Amino acid sequence: MDYRKKFIVPPGKKLRLADIDPADAQDQGSEADTADLMEHYRQKLADMQTLLYAENKRALLIVLQAMDAGGKDGTISHVMRAMNPQGVSVFRFEAPTPEEQAHDFLWRVHMRVPRRSQVGVFNRSHYEEVLITRVHKEIDLDTCRARYAQIRDFEAELFDNGTHILKFFLHISKDEQLARFGQRLEDPHRNWKISQSDYTEREFWDDYMGTYQDALSATSTKNAPWFVIPSNHKWFRDLAISQIVADTMDDFGMTYPKPQVDLAKIRRDYHAAVAEASGRRKRRS
Amino acid sequence: MDYRKKFIVPPGKKLRLADIDPADAQDQGSEADTADLMEHYRQKLADMQTLLYAENKRALLIVLQAMDAGGKDGTISHVMRAMNPQGVSVFRFEAPTPEEQAHDFLWRVHMRVPRRSQVGVFNRSHYEEVLITRVHKEIDLDTCRARYAQIRDFEAELFDNGTHILKFFLHISKDEQLARFGQRLEDPHRNWKISQSDYTEREFWDDYMGTYQDALSATSTKNAPWFVIPSNHKWFRDLAISQIVADTMDDFGMTYPKPQVDLAKIRRDYHAAVAEASGRRKRRS
Repeated sequence: MDYRKKFIVPPGKKLRLADIDPADAQDQGSEADTADLMEHYRQKLADMQTLLYAENKRALLIVLQAMDAGGKDGTISHVMRAMNPQGVSVFRFEAPTPEEQAHDFLWRVHMRVPRRSQVGVFNRSHYEEVLITRVHKEIDLDTCRARYAQIRDFEAELFDNGTHILKFFLHISKDEQLARFGQRLEDPHRNWKISQSDYTEREFWDDYMGTYQDALSATSTKNAPWFVIPSNHKWFRDLAISQIVADTMDDFGMTYPKPQVDLAKIRRDYHAAVAEASGRRKRRS
Repeated sequence: MDYRKKFIVPPGKKLRLADIDPADAQDQGSEADTADLMEHYRQKLADMQTLLYAENKRALLIVLQAMDAGGKDGTISHVMRAMNPQGVSVFRFEAPTPEEQAHDFLWRVHMRVPRRSQVGVFNRSHYEEVLITRVHKEIDLDTCRARYAQIRDFEAELFDNGTHILKFFLHISKDEQLARFGQRLEDPHRNWKISQSDYTEREFWDDYMGTYQDALSATSTKNAPWFVIPSNHKWFRDLAISQIVADTMDDFGMTYPKPQVDLAKIRRDYHAAVAEASGRRKRRS
């Protein structure tokens, strides 16, 4: 199954989140059943990232959005760890600083996009500016629609200049969120993560779902598509995202660059150096 | 064996690189012999980095320096990959841009130090400004000594403000470098990495060793120590660095932070939400 086709938000169509079961695992069974497949995609991610780095022609930006406890951190820890840290930069967007607020909403985002050869991962993103702000009525509908268009234009410019974009909404159910909050309460290594706002934001669940639907429908484009990933099962979420990222990179058709030097001359230098080293060892003995 | 004690450049003492065998592996046998030990330190690195992130009180800066093919990239790929990419930022310093050159030599470095909670890794660093520049006589001895002092002060200020610093010189032999150049020539996936300067810089090997000795001796301090890691054996290099980084972090005495919210109130909210969810499911059925 090609999860890109299965989970994409088709550009120009209206998404209905209610039609997507967060507990779906596409008949893949269990985590144990898919261990080999996951290892295959982990290796493929590592290989593709090495190629992206070597080729040095384009960048890949991965955007992660979800409700609290939706699994953004877990996805980074499990999926992105497959890649060489030298080629990956993760940025976690928090509440904007005064200086960031003094600029247009894409200013701080643009500063954090990955450079050529790199995979950049956004934990939250510019989409917060059409999600949480919209749910809490900090912006009106006209402003929100204007931002959709600005985001589309911004992402199109990135793509036209060599930055591929994949955007993932990690879709969990309201009950699954509650179960995860319960786990955090029980785990002394994780209850520092708990905030009061987790519970107050829950009251806006339906508003968030509606707002996500609108935002994803309006900003899923051919070159910067959204995917809605059923994420109640963490292992399935990791598998689906790994496949989508790895296969997308595979389709870039990347190749290792040709050496930028005269290899024949380098070979002569190499053999001269070998002879010199051999002479040095003989003189020492 | 505590490799911190074994491989540190003792502050205030003059390092002699000729006394350190790049092929040393401390009687650890082979990569296979140390697989369990390596896995132990990989897990410890992951645990310690999670704590550093959770605690959010300090940062760790890891500086990697080496001759070409010394293993900086390999160390990042093998050692740093043990940690969650969300908590690690790698920066590779290349030749300074015109804007960077228009500032003092520590300007671009300061901009890249890790924020609190993060592990920052420098692939090359400000030390190039007292190494390659000194070997090629771009700076005189007085300037070089002034920079040593400026670097000590800079690193002391970082430490005093919560950034721990570990600096590693990956020590390989001249013959080992040549062998690795040979491998790059043979491997079509790696010969794009070859540059002519690899061979021209080799001619300055002895100058580099002398300059490294001076620089490491002058800038190894109690709070920002240098370690000379025998690195002909890649597996031993990874093992020694993993141990030094993990044990250093262990000595920070970090603990998970206390929740910043009233857990009792959160628990009540949680149980209320569970009751509400249960009622919701009943109404649906």
